[in-house]
Amino acid sequence: MKLLKENITRYGKVLPGDILRVDAFLNHLVDVKLLERAGREFRKIFKGERVDKILTAESSGIAPAAMTAREFKVPVLFAKKNQAKNMPDKVYTAKIMSYTHGKVYDIVVSKELLTSGDRVLVIDDFLARGEALRGLISIVEQAGATLVGCGILIEKGFQKGGDALREAGIRVESLAIIDSMDESGNIIFRQ
Amino acid sequence: MKLLKENITRYGKVLPGDILRVDAFLNHLVDVKLLERAGREFRKIFKGERVDKILTAESSGIAPAAMTAREFKVPVLFAKKNQAKNMPDKVYTAKIMSYTHGKVYDIVVSKELLTSGDRVLVIDDFLARGEALRGLISIVEQAGATLVGCGILIEKGFQKGGDALREAGIRVESLAIIDSMDESGNIIFRQ
Repeated sequence: MKLLKENITRYGKVLPGDILRVDAFLNHLVDVKLLERAGREFRKIFKGERVDKILTAESSGIAPAAMTAREFKVPVLFAKKNQAKNMPDKVYTAKIMSYTHGKVYDIVVSKELLTSGDRVLVIDDFLARGEALRGLISIVEQAGATLVGCGILIEKGFQKGGDALREAGIRVESLAIIDSMDESGNIIFRQ
Repeated sequence: MKLLKENITRYGKVLPGDILRVDAFLNHLVDVKLLERAGREFRKIFKGERVDKILTAESSGIAPAAMTAREFKVPVLFAKKNQAKNMPDKVYTAKIMSYTHGKVYDIVVSKELLTSGDRVLVIDDFLARGEALRGLISIVEQAGATLVGCGILIEKGFQKGGDALREAGIRVESLAIIDSMDESGNIIFRQ
């Protein structure tokens, strides 16, 4: 998606440790118009697929997932990272290693809200080593639901998580795949 | 907002400790169509006001804020609850007591992304004692930005946070105000 790549090139900041900071339009300040266009793009890519629910993980997945859900006219289900006091007892869980936050955490989804009849499209802002995505896919599997595929805004192609999932037969569609980036601001996208 | 109140009555679960669980349409599974209508409602309520940014707090504020931002054609800025490794150094912070999670946490906003020229509409899913809202308002003040007002989906009127803010001269508009609720499912809305 051309506009997304332009935003990454223009506003993205490459930090030590292969971190791409996109606070200016995606992960802190959110360019809702850009996400609307991303949602339309996912609608086009997954055309012909029946989708009942969009699944994502809090927090930065929520806005892109909501804008995509709007296009598909379905609800968003977001996995929670902390089990709040008011969570139900019966949940699916998966462990995720967050390199950005430097810790392992659980994601949690209520069993009431995801069931075996659901056809699920997973949407997330980033795909790097694939930790978060594997957690979300595990939750779809635990529910006995059907995974339609995964739609990602920014894939760090050089961290190989996306390719490993594709090799495992999972449909992963990314709107921008970065093949290399460095701290002087050179960002090379996959063709 | 009639449709929101109907959803609260139909799907809301009142739990011990004055907790209203609205996982089925707002805080876990998100009814995006309902939020689109809420966004249009806020657009109507704050008609004539110039708004440059919508401010909210992660996580459950993000979807309603994004749908409202879409109506105003402005970006969403969401305050972060954990300072990730990839956050900038210069931030505004406020401390918030979460009764739902039973702890105090910091919310954080990058100074780069909120400045004195901004006219800000704060959007959040819940207003109870007003802790989160006061934190967000404090961040607007720290930035020297202008607070247009606050738009809330569900206000627990009996916990008085909203009325205290209104008495302090802040414009707080809630789409549903609950005056009383009990565990047998009686929920009374303010007229």
